[in-house]
Order: sequence, then structure tokens, then C-alpha cells
Amino acid sequence: MKKLINSPDTVVTDALAGLAAAHPALSVDTDNKIITRASGPRQGKVGLVSGGGSGHEPLHGGFVGYGMLDAACPGEVFTSPVPDQMLAATKAVDGGAGVLHIVKNYTGDVLNFQMAAELAEDEGIDVVPVVINDDVAVQDSLYTAGRRGTGATVFVEKIAGALAEEGADLTAVAAVAREVNERSRSFGVALSPCAIPAAGKPTFELGESEVELGIGIHGEPGRTRSALLPAGELAAIALDAIRADMAVDGDLLVMVNGMGGTPLIELYVVFNEVRKQLAASGGHVARNLVGNYITSLEMQGFSVTICQLTDTLARLWDAPVDTPALRWGR
Amino acid sequence: MKKLINSPDTVVTDALAGLAAAHPALSVDTDNKIITRASGPRQGKVGLVSGGGSGHEPLHGGFVGYGMLDAACPGEVFTSPVPDQMLAATKAVDGGAGVLHIVKNYTGDVLNFQMAAELAEDEGIDVVPVVINDDVAVQDSLYTAGRRGTGATVFVEKIAGALAEEGADLTAVAAVAREVNERSRSFGVALSPCAIPAAGKPTFELGESEVELGIGIHGEPGRTRSALLPAGELAAIALDAIRADMAVDGDLLVMVNGMGGTPLIELYVVFNEVRKQLAASGGHVARNLVGNYITSLEMQGFSVTICQLTDTLARLWDAPVDTPALRWGR
Repeated sequence: MKKLINSPDTVVTDALAGLAAAHPALSVDTDNKIITRASGPRQGKVGLVSGGGSGHEPLHGGFVGYGMLDAACPGEVFTSPVPDQMLAATKAVDGGAGVLHIVKNYTGDVLNFQMAAELAEDEGIDVVPVVINDDVAVQDSLYTAGRRGTGATVFVEKIAGALAEEGADLTAVAAVAREVNERSRSFGVALSPCAIPAAGKPTFELGESEVELGIGIHGEPGRTRSALLPAGELAAIALDAIRADMAVDGDLLVMVNGMGGTPLIELYVVFNEVRKQLAASGGHVARNLVGNYITSLEMQGFSVTICQLTDTLARLWDAPVDTPALRWGR
Repeated sequence: MKKLINSPDTVVTDALAGLAAAHPALSVDTDNKIITRASGPRQGKVGLVSGGGSGHEPLHGGFVGYGMLDAACPGEVFTSPVPDQMLAATKAVDGGAGVLHIVKNYTGDVLNFQMAAELAEDEGIDVVPVVINDDVAVQDSLYTAGRRGTGATVFVEKIAGALAEEGADLTAVAAVAREVNERSRSFGVALSPCAIPAAGKPTFELGESEVELGIGIHGEPGRTRSALLPAGELAAIALDAIRADMAVDGDLLVMVNGMGGTPLIELYVVFNEVRKQLAASGGHVARNLVGNYITSLEMQGFSVTICQLTDTLARLWDAPVDTPALRWGR
């Protein structure tokens, strides 16, 4: 296991210091691990807070900025942030219109965000949580009751962020976040494991020509293992798993996401297979993201996330965004 | 060696088809491997063409668009494109004001671009080549006479592209491209090798706790090997090598670039070390890029590229750009 770090103990704070230095539009409290917009909360705007373990960069800190999140609270690598941290982030972004918590469905995250929401309510801040659970690979898993939250988180943060920026109220912003989650499904494939810095060894082992189908973003086991297959067949497995759970026709928002160690040339190969196979069954890729957006440290592999668009969701997707990792139209 | 591809023979064309489908603002001729702006050449604007072997994505195709390149011609993986391809790209982007060829210093690329320039001149198109040679690690190397061209290519494409967009003539655009190259230096470190799909095995071997210092973007040997060191020490080695060749004080444009398989969390750790160490010796990171911009397939590692800014170069860096891989201000 080789990593570009100073020490397993400081990897998260060192990376946060780098994030702060690279992006002056962010305000980063490295001690308390809270990333907010340097411009502060906007009075009357619903605040959006997300968070979760580190190791999935650019998620979530790279999505803080105009048109997306107001704050992110990263935990240690693959470890939930704590309620106090979430509470501080919630208070920091409250502009009087309440705060949406975007929570990936992992037991620790859900419990801690719930406690933070209760504490915030005690201080007079309206909080609505939305739990993301788009991963069709497994019901229940190592860290989850029910389905895991993965790629749809990026879509929810972008689309709910755009609606909040327009001035919608907390009920409406929470409703669109839930709608995006309900209309989205994901499936991931790993070619290699990853290693948590503090553990110093891979989270699992894969044979020389083996892949894990239905992998989670922490290296949780998937559905099954298979021999390495051509990209087209791996894309078909991912799409079949998604199709078994949701119709994928009409206008779609599609993300082909790298797991952190996947070169871009391969992600474009996978994206080409995905859009061809979707087209063959009546699905039109109306919007797309191809790149590393929700990763698992240095894991090699990909995930596909598909959202059934509506005109409103497409409009909110297209709205201006200005964050380290997503930036357009402004 | 596990790769997300259909076949080593089709990886480049499959990826180009994916690039085309993902980015409607690009026009991609997958047969002839030429990527241009879908909007076509602008009359009176200097055209910018770059190219080189595939495997370095997003370079160069991801940098085609407003404010940067007019065309890119990718070769097979780690293989120069051919003169006919470069000639076709040159003709496709000529708006009557001549064409700049941005050429990384590898023997094959230089010879083929030279031949393409001669053929274009025969057809009445003014062509000026600028050869990029910013890598301080080695004089001469496996594929190069003189220094290799690496990260400065991204800076040259952005800054010369901005000047061309403003309507400057070919002489001025070529001059600023040369100036950026002369004011830029790079140094790279590899934690792991990469494997060319058609070869099926790594380009070199590294021990369990070894790194290669001064690596090139094709896995060419560097200066020396060392045991894996903390990120701060690796950053210091890179900066020392750069400082030995160029003063790095005042306002700097700094890129901390991943080699394709490096997770973003680690790149931010390295960036933090780089900016701290530069600050200690009077260098101010006035602009930065942190991410995967010029890669070596799935190689893990990083490179640092530093450009001594002037007010003009900073202004051109900040100018609007709208490409798949760099996008701001528009």
C-alpha cells in the first residue's frame, strides 16, 4: 500500500488544508472539519449540508459552493462525522429558512445526522433530512440497513442546491431532493480494492483477473464476483441491475463515475457502452457526467448512476454551479 | 493488469466515441482521430492544434473548446499521431489567421508535427510550432532528445488559447506560448507503473515500498528510485529539482497533477505541502490546479508544474474557458 500522505493520522486535516489553500471561495475549519462557502449563509436561503466519511473526494467538500452545498462535514476516512460537527455546520449555514441534511444511507451517518438535527431543532433551526439510498446492488450491507447511498448523492446535491439558490422553501427543496433520490439508481463494479490509510491493508482481496460486481463505496462486498469481462459486458451487468429496479427510458441523466484510481480514458469507454445500450432500449442520455465524483480512495472500477429526468429536474441540473468539482454557467 | 476496455485494439476509438457522446460541443472524427470544436473555425482567429499519444486524458481532447484548443489529434496509446492526422486537424481549424502547433517534446511527435507543418504550408496555411520541454527530471530520455514536455502543456494551451480568443495574431500567440514554456518547470514522482493495453504488462516494475523520482508521462525512467517517503518529503524533492533550474518566487501558477490512478485526497495533501514549502522560500501560489490533467493511464503518483506568472499571464489564465476538463468564467 503506497500513499501520498504524511501520516495516516493527518491525512484528512492535511487534505483539508490543501483544499482551503486551493479554493479561496471555501472557508475551511480544519480543526472541526467543516467546509462552508466563504461568502457565508445567505439570509432567506435554505441551507444544504452534507457529510460522511472522507475518502470519497471530491464528495462532499468539492461540491460546496454556489448552486450546490452550503457546507460539508467530512469524517475520518470511511468514518461518519460526529453530531457536534454536523450541528456546527448546520448553525453556520442557517439563513433563517431552515437546513436540508443530505445523508447517505449508512447506519453511522444516519444516526449522527439524526442527533444533529434534534440538537439544531432545540436551537430553533428547522432541519429536514433526506436519506439517499440509490444503490441497487444489495439490500442491507456491511454498514447499512436497506440500500446504500452512492452516486445519486451528487445529483441530489446539484439539483436541490439549484432549487435552494432560486429561493424555494425548505419543504420544496426537501421534496425535490427526495424526488431525485427516488428517480435514481446506481450500480458499481470494482477491479481493485482500496486501503484505508490507518489500516494499512486492502479492505478486501481480488484475484488477478477477478472483479467485484455491486461493490459499495467503502469496498463493502457486492453481489458476486466474476472474471474480468469486456467493458461492454460490465456495463450491461450494471444496466441490467438498474433496469430490474427502475424503468430507464426517456430522457436520462447518467453519471459514469470512477472509483478514484480509474483513468479517464476507461471511463469514456464505459460511458460509450452505457449510452449505446441505453439507446437500444429507448433511453436517451440527455445529460451526463463522466469522471471521478464519488470515489473510494484509489479503488479501480466504475459506477453507473441513472436519474429519470423531468423538465424541471433537467432545468435545475443545467442551472449555474460554481464549486471546485462542478462548475458551469456562471 | 485489469482494464475497463473492450479490446486493446479499440480502446482509443471507443473512448473517442464516448467523448463525442458526452460533449456535444465537440466534433469528433473517430475514424481519423480528430477532435475539433463543433462550432467550427472562427474566421480571423488563430487556430490552436495539439496532439500526442493517448493515455494522458484529459490531455488533449479534454482541452478542446472556447478559450483553449481548436483541435486535438490523439495517437494510439503512448504513440504519436501521424502527419496526415495533424494536417487534417490544421486544415479543419484554419480561419485564415494561421495555426499554432503545440508539441510536447518527444521525438515522434516533433518529427510528425514538423512534417504536418510543411504539408500545411504547401497548402497555404501559416503554421508555427512551439515545442514544450518543461520537465527538469532528465536531459534526453527514452523517447526524447532534450527535456520532456509534460505539465506546462496544460498552461500553454490555456494561456495561448486565451490570447488567440482575444484576436491576437499568430506571432503574438506563438510568443506567449513560448514564454509560458520558458517560465514553467515540472517534476514527477511515480508510486506505481502503468500498462499499455496492447502490451498487457507494466511499463516498468517498482518494489513494494519504492517510488520512481523524475518519472515521465509514459513511465520512462526518472532520475533515481527511493523508498516511499512522506508526502512532504516527496514534494520537497520535486521542488528542489525545479528550484535548481528556475527561481520560484513571486506569484506562481502551480499545478499538482495526478498520474491517473491517484485519489484526489492525496493530491490535496501534496498541494498543501507544495504551497507551504513555496511560501517558506518566497513563492506565492497565486493560481492553482489540483487534479488529473496530464496522466499516464492508471499510474499512481503526482507531478508538480510551476509557472512564474506575470500580470498578463495571470489575466490570460483567468480568462473564460469552456472545455470538458477546464471550465470557468463563461
